[in-house]
Amino acid sequence: MPTYIDPTAEVDPSATIGEGTRVWGHAYVAPNASIGRNCMLARNTHVGKGAVMGDGCKLQDGSGITTGVTLGNYVFVGPNVTFCNDPDPRASNTNFAPAITSVGDGAVICAAAVIDAGVTIGEGAKVAPGAVVCRNVPAGMFAVGNPARILPRMERAS
Amino acid sequence: MPTYIDPTAEVDPSATIGEGTRVWGHAYVAPNASIGRNCMLARNTHVGKGAVMGDGCKLQDGSGITTGVTLGNYVFVGPNVTFCNDPDPRASNTNFAPAITSVGDGAVICAAAVIDAGVTIGEGAKVAPGAVVCRNVPAGMFAVGNPARILPRMERAS
Amino acid sequence: MPTYIDPTAEVDPSATIGEGTRVWGHAYVAPNASIGRNCMLARNTHVGKGAVMGDGCKLQDGSGITTGVTLGNYVFVGPNVTFCNDPDPRASNTNFAPAITSVGDGAVICAAAVIDAGVTIGEGAKVAPGAVVCRNVPAGMFAVGNPARILPRMERAS
Repeated sequence: MPTYIDPTAEVDPSATIGEGTRVWGHAYVAPNASIGRNCMLARNTHVGKGAVMGDGCKLQDGSGITTGVTLGNYVFVGPNVTFCNDPDPRASNTNFAPAITSVGDGAVICAAAVIDAGVTIGEGAKVAPGAVVCRNVPAGMFAVGNPARILPRMERAS
Repeated sequence: MPTYIDPTAEVDPSATIGEGTRVWGHAYVAPNASIGRNCMLARNTHVGKGAVMGDGCKLQDGSGITTGVTLGNYVFVGPNVTFCNDPDPRASNTNFAPAITSVGDGAVICAAAVIDAGVTIGEGAKVAPGAVVCRNVPAGMFAVGNPARILPRMERAS
Repeated sequence: MPTYIDPTAEVDPSATIGEGTRVWGHAYVAPNASIGRNCMLARNTHVGKGAVMGDGCKLQDGSGITTGVTLGNYVFVGPNVTFCNDPDPRASNTNFAPAITSVGDGAVICAAAVIDAGVTIGEGAKVAPGAVVCRNVPAGMFAVGNPARILPRMERAS
């Protein structure tokens, strides 16, 4: 598919957008963000300053990745997912430095999940809808609940 | 009240909007969506392609119903509620078919709840704030927690 | 810093905005809202009719405070936080009166937390990411989980 940037989206000129990526209405891509090829950024999504997204990722409505977050390739981020980047937030924080959060290739983060600052989510891991993930999720594992427990990932017998 | 569509809202011409329905700022109504009479769609809400809403429903700020979702009449959907429609999401899914999710007449879905793909919520049921609903909620029952447990619905003695 | 209101923000003329406050893209400030000095309202935030925010508060992306909510000074509200103001919501509610919800000075409400209608959060209290707070949080305490339990607040030994 050809690259598409909706007229209502706001993409900073210093950001990189790969070929074939589609950016829908009211999405916001901040300075120095880097987005791979064939990604899909749905309505009302955002990518923070310097955040990185690999190839073939999907960011569903209302989700965003903040500064400090790196997504691998083919990562799915469902609607209304929140990434945190401050391990000790407060109203006045002059020493703020964003935590590094990374998500491995092929991981799936379901709707409305919350990923705490500094967490690493391994390749092919899955995060359940509404899970609140406060510690690392090893590759291929499944995080569910609040706070999220780590379980083996059950594949559906389609 | 007369029908109202805010100038900043985006309503596809193929969508149906019933008499007396009000659509507020930056709301988005996708193609072939069907919205009944006397509904209220608050700011930043969205109704997906072909989604159906009965009469007298309220969708609060930041909520949306996706393709595959049907709301009955007089359904309340609080702010930032998320409906899922893919039982097995992933970044690349060429066989995607939306699950069918339905909400019965008079049901109340409180703020920031998450409704998993394919769930049926019965008439007059209630979903607590922040509940993550992964299975059906029978008519008149109350879903609370993550994952949501099903309890009898306690009415307030006003 | 000088006061700043983004051209895409919508601020009702009857609202009060203190000196040095910055209001970013697509934020919405409703009639009679009162916002103190040196606050920061990030993108897609909203402040409801008559809601009150003290000095030096931060409201991160996608969060909002509704009618009936009062924030003290130096309150941090993370991204996608939801405040409720109706203890008994339903689609048709002709007797609606917003509950009074207050947050004390220096409190920290982390990402995607849900604050139920009528809750009081004390000075310096903290709410964990994704917590669903259904009862009061005393000053200096920590609320975590769904429904949130109240624990002593652990300070990080930086």
